Amino acid sequence: MSHITLDTDEPGIRGLFQFRPETAAPLNRLAEVLLRGDSTLTRGERELIAAHVSSLNQCRFCTSSHAAFAAAQLPEGMELVDRVRADLETAPVSAKLKALLRIAAAVQRSGLEVTPDLVRAARAEGATDLEIHDTVLIAAAFCMFNRYVDGLGTWAPDDPAAYAAAAELIVTSGYVSLVDESA
Amino acid sequence: MSHITLDTDEPGIRGLFQFRPETAAPLNRLAEVLLRGDSTLTRGERELIAAHVSSLNQCRFCTSSHAAFAAAQLPEGMELVDRVRADLETAPVSAKLKALLRIAAAVQRSGLEVTPDLVRAARAEGATDLEIHDTVLIAAAFCMFNRYVDGLGTWAPDDPAAYAAAAELIVTSGYVSLVDESA
Repeated sequence: MSHITLDTDEPGIRGLFQFRPETAAPLNRLAEVLLRGDSTLTRGERELIAAHVSSLNQCRFCTSSHAAFAAAQLPEGMELVDRVRADLETAPVSAKLKALLRIAAAVQRSGLEVTPDLVRAARAEGATDLEIHDTVLIAAAFCMFNRYVDGLGTWAPDDPAAYAAAAELIVTSGYVSLVDESA
Repeated sequence: MSHITLDTDEPGIRGLFQFRPETAAPLNRLAEVLLRGDSTLTRGERELIAAHVSSLNQCRFCTSSHAAFAAAQLPEGMELVDRVRADLETAPVSAKLKALLRIAAAVQRSGLEVTPDLVRAARAEGATDLEIHDTVLIAAAFCMFNRYVDGLGTWAPDDPAAYAAAAELIVTSGYVSLVDESA
């Protein structure tokens, strides 16, 4: 049961968006720009970073959600998402994406854990400053989203179909479709 | 030196806002709503929560900034901010604010650390659902801001006057004054 009365059956962050539309608007705008805006990282790659950080933070709702959103937008689907979550080092992702996922994992522990060596390694694999920036901010943002969802004790569906349905909505209409932007 | 080339002398998150205005806009909108929007928590109390979480995350730029912003908007000034940072349990804040600061400290560790007991204790001191919600989201948001600032290796001024000048700008013009909202 959630720690506060939400007056909705919506799970995870969606119940919180209904409770507080004033904060839902900038939160969804941020997710839209970071995960779906113009970028040289694909939408699937960016959702994979979000799922990986959510998994490290043990946030069940966000992990299931963004794993489904990544799987829906990666050619390799859920198998690749599961491989990354199980063991990043042996997962079949590009050297550049692996280096960025290592930076994201450092951010999950603390911003102070991101070393010049980690950044140099990503750059050596072709990562641009903008890709490194966005990776750090995606990882940092999910340290927020995960804490928001679990810190208020929201519930998470057990049925994978719920996350697959959410993925279809996000892929077709985006994060901004989740809120009333006039709030 | 920052991990990426920012082409600006602006410190901390302000250099990052110039680098990436597309994400600066929702980030500042979020800070504005949470820290300065309508609330039964004063602006000083909310900045104190931000400063406390930033201090726990050892983020020097954010701690110095939000300590200055809190001090500028609390009747007790910097002395109270320093007392809270030194030892929350003995700091002379209201029982309600102390209970909310305990929730914020739990969020800093993990969303899963927020227990029903912590929430019950805050409610017993008069905290509303909205105040509990906003406390959790402020704490979660600073787990993002702190990681963003340190994860990209930005610099922080040593001179307290720099933070006092920033406080004057925030108090008079707000966070949205920091960015071009049309971005």
